[in-house]
Order: sequence, then C-alpha cells, then structure tokens
Amino acid sequence: MIANMTEDQLLVLVIKYIKEAKRGALQQLLDELHPYDFAQIYRGLPEKHHHKFLTFLTPGQIADLIQELEYDVQLEILQQLGIERSSKVMDLMDNDDLADLLNELSVDKIKEFLDVMKKEDSQNIQSLMSYPAETAGGLMTNQFVWIHADQTVRQAVDKLKAYASFSENIYYLYVINHEKKLVGVVSYRDLLIAEIDDKIEDLMFNRVVAVHVDADQEEVARTIERYDFIAVPVVNDDNVLLGIITVDDALDVVIREANEDIEKLSASGKDIDFNTKALTASFRRLPWLILLLFIGLVSGSIISGFEETLDQVVALIFFMPMIAGMTGNTGTQSLAVVVRGIISHHIDRRTVISLVFRELRVGLIIGLTCGLLIMLIAFVWQDNLILGLTVGISLLITLIVGTLAGTVIPLLLYRLGVDPAVASGPLITTINDIFSLMIYFGIATMFLSRLTGL
Amino acid sequence: MIANMTEDQLLVLVIKYIKEAKRGALQQLLDELHPYDFAQIYRGLPEKHHHKFLTFLTPGQIADLIQELEYDVQLEILQQLGIERSSKVMDLMDNDDLADLLNELSVDKIKEFLDVMKKEDSQNIQSLMSYPAETAGGLMTNQFVWIHADQTVRQAVDKLKAYASFSENIYYLYVINHEKKLVGVVSYRDLLIAEIDDKIEDLMFNRVVAVHVDADQEEVARTIERYDFIAVPVVNDDNVLLGIITVDDALDVVIREANEDIEKLSASGKDIDFNTKALTASFRRLPWLILLLFIGLVSGSIISGFEETLDQVVALIFFMPMIAGMTGNTGTQSLAVVVRGIISHHIDRRTVISLVFRELRVGLIIGLTCGLLIMLIAFVWQDNLILGLTVGISLLITLIVGTLAGTVIPLLLYRLGVDPAVASGPLITTINDIFSLMIYFGIATMFLSRLTGL
Repeated sequence: MIANMTEDQLLVLVIKYIKEAKRGALQQLLDELHPYDFAQIYRGLPEKHHHKFLTFLTPGQIADLIQELEYDVQLEILQQLGIERSSKVMDLMDNDDLADLLNELSVDKIKEFLDVMKKEDSQNIQSLMSYPAETAGGLMTNQFVWIHADQTVRQAVDKLKAYASFSENIYYLYVINHEKKLVGVVSYRDLLIAEIDDKIEDLMFNRVVAVHVDADQEEVARTIERYDFIAVPVVNDDNVLLGIITVDDALDVVIREANEDIEKLSASGKDIDFNTKALTASFRRLPWLILLLFIGLVSGSIISGFEETLDQVVALIFFMPMIAGMTGNTGTQSLAVVVRGIISHHIDRRTVISLVFRELRVGLIIGLTCGLLIMLIAFVWQDNLILGLTVGISLLITLIVGTLAGTVIPLLLYRLGVDPAVASGPLITTINDIFSLMIYFGIATMFLSRLTGL
Repeated sequence: MIANMTEDQLLVLVIKYIKEAKRGALQQLLDELHPYDFAQIYRGLPEKHHHKFLTFLTPGQIADLIQELEYDVQLEILQQLGIERSSKVMDLMDNDDLADLLNELSVDKIKEFLDVMKKEDSQNIQSLMSYPAETAGGLMTNQFVWIHADQTVRQAVDKLKAYASFSENIYYLYVINHEKKLVGVVSYRDLLIAEIDDKIEDLMFNRVVAVHVDADQEEVARTIERYDFIAVPVVNDDNVLLGIITVDDALDVVIREANEDIEKLSASGKDIDFNTKALTASFRRLPWLILLLFIGLVSGSIISGFEETLDQVVALIFFMPMIAGMTGNTGTQSLAVVVRGIISHHIDRRTVISLVFRELRVGLIIGLTCGLLIMLIAFVWQDNLILGLTVGISLLITLIVGTLAGTVIPLLLYRLGVDPAVASGPLITTINDIFSLMIYFGIATMFLSRLTGL
C-alpha cells in the first residue's frame, strides 16, 4: 500500500498517526522511507506537529532526518531535542555532516555538545572540524572500513558486517599497513567473487587513486568523475589514510560549483535563491551594480570628450548601442568558453597561445561578417557611404578587441590566482563598452571632415 | 613499484614494453590501472604505437579503454580493430555506452556491427537505441541484476557472483514479480548483514524510488542526488523494470547540464571548447550575434526618433550607456536567480507570484539607491538639477522594469516549455537596452522645456 503513495498521501497518513498517537504504525511507515522522504514530511508538517513527530522517531531516524535539512531547521530540531537527546542523535550522524553542522555554531555551543558526546566521537569530530570547508579534508568522513593486507576474505567480510549496521556508505574496503599508510583497496565485488580463505593482498589493487587532504573540492569531484568511483580515499603527505569522500558529496560539490560559476558570470550576488528576502537580495546585488554604475559613467565621460564630433553628426549616436552591445556580447561568449574550459583543461603556455590565436581568428571572421553587414545597412538607412564605412570598420575592430578581451582577461585573472568567473559577464560587457566607444568615436573623428562633407 | 608512478613514468614504461614486445609485463601493469588510466596512456602514446598497443590488450581491456575516449578516437580504434574484433569488444562494453557509440554511426555501419554481434546483445542494444538521448531511457543500461521476492539470500549472492564477473556496476539487487514489475530493492549491505537462508521479501524495501523511462535526464540526476543513490531503476507505465542508471552517469549529466546553462546564458553557441576550430566556433557564434545586431539597430532607431530632444540637450547622451548597461545588468542578475532556482524548485502559481513580488521589491530598493546616487552625480557633474532628476527618475524606473523583465521573461518561457536559459544574458540585456532607452528619452522629452530652460 505504502509502495505507491504520493508524497501528499504520505503526509496525510503521518499527520493521522501523530494525531492518533500511533507510534508503531508510524515506525512501520518510516521503515519503508528514505532520509529524503523524512525531510519532505518534516517540511510539509504543520509546525504544531513537529515536536510530537520528533518524539516518535528513534535517534537514528532523527540523525537521518537532520542530515537532509537546511542549517536553520537543523538548529530548530536540536533546540527541541535538548542537549541530552541531541548528543545521542549527533553520535549517530555521519561525521562529515556533523562537523559541518557544528561549524555553524558558536564556540560555547560547540563545547557544550562535544562535552556530552562519547569521547572517541568527540575527538573524531574535532579533527574533522580543523580542515577548511572547501578542501578534501572538509568533505571527508572518517567513518570508513580498513583492513590489513595479510588478513583473509573471511575476516574482511566479518569486519564489514560489523560496520554495515551503522554506516551506509561502505562500498570499498581500504587496506593499510602497520603505519596506517594506504597500500591497497578491495571492492565489495572483489570480496563477493573471491574464495572465503583468500588473502586480501592477493585480491587488492595496489595502485590506489587517492586525493590529498588539502586538495580543492573541485579536484576531488574531478577525480571521482574521471574514475567513476563510489568513494575516494583521502591521505596526508605520508600517505596515511585519514578518511573517505563518497560520490554523493562529489555530486553536491559539482552542483554547488556550477551555481557559483553562474552567479559570478552574471554578477548576481552570492547565495540568492527563491527564498532570499528582498532586502538581503538587494544588498547582495547592489555592490556589483554600484561598481558598474561608475564604470558606466566612464563611458559617458568618453562620449562627452567627443561632444564636438557628435554635434556635427548626430546619426553616429544611432549606431552607438549596437556597437557597444555587440562588443560586450562577443566578449561574454569568449568568457564563457574560457570559464568552462579551465575546469577541464590543464592551462599551460601552449594552450593559452593557441587559444588566444584561435579567438583572434574568430574575432576576425565575425568582425568581417558583421562589419560588412552593418556597413550595408548603415549606407542604405542613412544614405551616407562614409557613415557606413565608419560604422563597419569600427564594428570590425571592436569585435576583434572584444573577443580578445573576453579571452585574455579571464586567463590573466586565472594566472593571478583569481577565479576567472569573477570577470563576470556584466563586467566584461562594461569594459568592452568603454573600448568600443573610444574606437568608434575615434574613427568617426578621423573621418569627420568627410562625414560632414557629404 | 607501479603504485607510486606518475602518469608520465607509466607512459614511458608502456612504450618500453611495446618496443620490446613484452606483452606479459604490459598485462601485469594494466591489471593495476583503471579505464581512465588506459585512456590517458592511449592519448599520450605516439600514433605509431597505437596499433601494437591495441593488439596487446584483451577485448575486455579495449572495451574499458574505448568507453573513456571521445567519439572520434573511438571510431579510429574500431577501424584499426576491424569488424570481427570490434564486435568482440562491443559485446563486452556497457550497453549504454555502446548504444551511444552506435548512435553516431551511419545506418549501414550500425547494421554491419549488429549483424556480427551475439543475437541477444544485438537485440538489447537495439532496444536501448530506440530511446531519445536526453531521457532516462537514453541513459540507462539494461545490464542489471534482478531476483524474485521468494528467493533466498543464498540464491541472491550466487546470482550476484555470476554477474559480478562481467559487470562492475552492481550495488543494488532489484526484486521483480512474475510480470517483471519492480516490487522491491535490496542493497549489497542488506545482503551482507542478513542470514544466508533469509527470504529476499523479508529484507527488501517495498517502496522503490524509480524514474520513468521518458523522464528528462535532469530529473534522473535530481532523484539520484536527493536520495544519495548509487543507482536508480528505470520503469515504464506498467512499472516494468527496464534498466538502471548509475550515479557516475548522473554526475556526467549534471556537469553537461551546467555547461549548457552557461552556454545559453552567455549565448556562446553550442559545444565550443578549447579545441574547436576558429571557423566552426565563428559559425556557431554568428547566428546569435547577427540576431543581436538587428535588435541593437532597434535601439538605434528609437534614439533616432528622439533626435530633436538630443539635438537640444547633448548631455543626455553621456548617461545613455550607464542607464542601458545598468538595466541590462540587473536583468541578468534576476535571470541567473530564476535559471538556478528552476532546477531545484517546483514552479507553481504561488512560487511565481511570491518571486515576482520579491523581485519587484528588489527592483524598488536598488532603483531608489542607484537613482538617488546618479541624481547627485549628474547634478554635480553637469550642474543641472533637472538633468539630475531626469537621469535619476529614469534609472529608478528602468531598474524596476529591468529586474522584472529578467524575472518574468524566463518564467514565461519556462511556462511555454522553452528552456529559460535561452533567454540568454545578452538577449535580456539587449531587450532591456530598448526598454531603458524608451523610458529615458521619453522622460527627457517630458522634461524638455525645463531641461533647455536652465
């Protein structure tokens, strides 16, 4: 029956069980559900039922639930549970999730929770909390299963059985030596097809792909993606095994990083989603906009420098938005190619040179095409050949410059260690605005005597 | 020794073995490596060694290698192998990868390969090839392990053992009834902690999270991400189990979709990377640029409609790029929030209304801030209060309109079934250009007698 129920139907049933205080029935229902479902039910429940719902759950179920929720809801639950019951729940949470949660609390609060936890767990958590958030150390859990090379398949399976009851993330068994250095890896599958008395050292892979504890989270995700791993081991300089990172965390990293790139490319401000309050969203967006406002004024003052030229040929203004816009657009196009490429390519001198020359050729091709087109249009529209030439030549040059700016600026930022996505679309657009106006009015001024002569 | 070698050292060793025709030593080396490493070696090998390298590999190793390579290199290898040996390799490839490869070939070529494959495999592949590429059907493999509910753990383990030797992607065992309908799921871990004579139906989850065969690939990735699955089953309307999709494919989907969103947001043209030829890149970028060129000309003709106003107050032009640019920028910011939000939110009427009102408030806040700022600046710079008022009020209104346009246009496109990322940054920018010019010059014309009067 439960098998085919929708989320809404489940929620109605849960509310019914809560109202009728049917703890047993609720437990039977929850047994068939996943942590994500727990979270959806909790989010859907009217607030007055939250407390009772929590009292009906086992500490293990609350641990599953809490791991799926947003930080502020997590805190709310901990408060409802009180310090005693919270610490029981925390003992059962995945270490990496718990470390993330505690990292958000005040120092006093952290100490309070750690004090009531089991000593071993508390130490484990504290060591995890010492790593920076966006590194392998910050992502890893130290709940993994290890074994020695001289043990047998039987011993390995027994150990796995013992661990399987309190960790869901066991797909590989890591082999360490007596200095705790990582020397091999065995998968479930290897154990399954092996004979029960085989030695681990005869089954294991010796060349273990691992990531360094200081590695950036993007590198971790890339490694997991390339090798199609379910988990990757984390080691220190001495190759000592410190923890593991599972593929579900890699997936979250990839999604988060993609969102960050889009945020930066559109200069849209950090962490704005559908639920962000208007005032907060405004304050996150304003710094960019005010910066761009001043850059925009630079364009204005450039134009004011050419006031004389403009006074004589007002038609020049008609093509101004088109030239500035096109230059900005081609720059954004190049920027996107570079930002995407940097994720998957090793950037050496040869790559940079060949990329810049490629974009130079691209600029030339699109410049010639669009330049000729606009020359024709300007000539027909304004019946002025020199104006057509001015606009056409300007567009040719600005498109080449814009394309190169969109390529060179992000590469330069990357070389300086700045995230090139920060050279955001609007910023490149605005810089290219300035370039294009100077080129356009510069050329127009050169042609001025002929422009007014006709 | 192999355990600590770098990629370059490995490559040198492989070349040495090839030159000395040491097949045994090469095999020993490859045993310790992953498919990704095979591919890196193949890419690094000088072309003259390619053929010999392939003759040294087993068909299984070539299958692993081929799955990691780009389409054109795959074809090159198939050609080198010849039809007979290729078909052996294809029999050993993952069905989903093979279907993708064949989909790229000509109809004649496909038939040629399918004819020499085992009949069962050939039918499997043909059924996979019938699903559209970006759906669950197009992603899934039909190599999975199923069992009946009344069987025992012992039978399940025996079946897994039989399958484990030719499939690496076994993490769950799917339970089907006699109509092949999906009725449950059991993980490796469940089997490990169960007693050997337990019945599967007593262990299994009844509420199986599955995706429909027609589901979009983004939905598949979202399901795997939410539930932290290693694999998700694919079913048809009758809940018949057709295949599975593994988390590594979900990871690839997420990366590909993020790249596509960035491509579309920047209107940078499809599939341009560091290796695309200049001419190809130009042709992919030009359609967007030419479209935007004509939209840019619309701005020009709007300005030409206000020629009289401009003639009287040339200073109006100085603020034109700033106003157009700012309106475009705020639109892009809103667009990015919407495009990202749509991925993770269910879009119903309430969400839309609350989002539009939120953005209205955001537009008001940033409009007031930037409007006041520019009014002050314009007044100080041009020493003209009315000009300051004109520019300030215009910016207030255009920022509100731009923010709303960046919100409403993508939501509208989404409602019409068009990917909202297509309402790309440059397109929104250009549309907002037009809005902003009309508003700016419209207000200026209203204030004209006062503007010139001072």
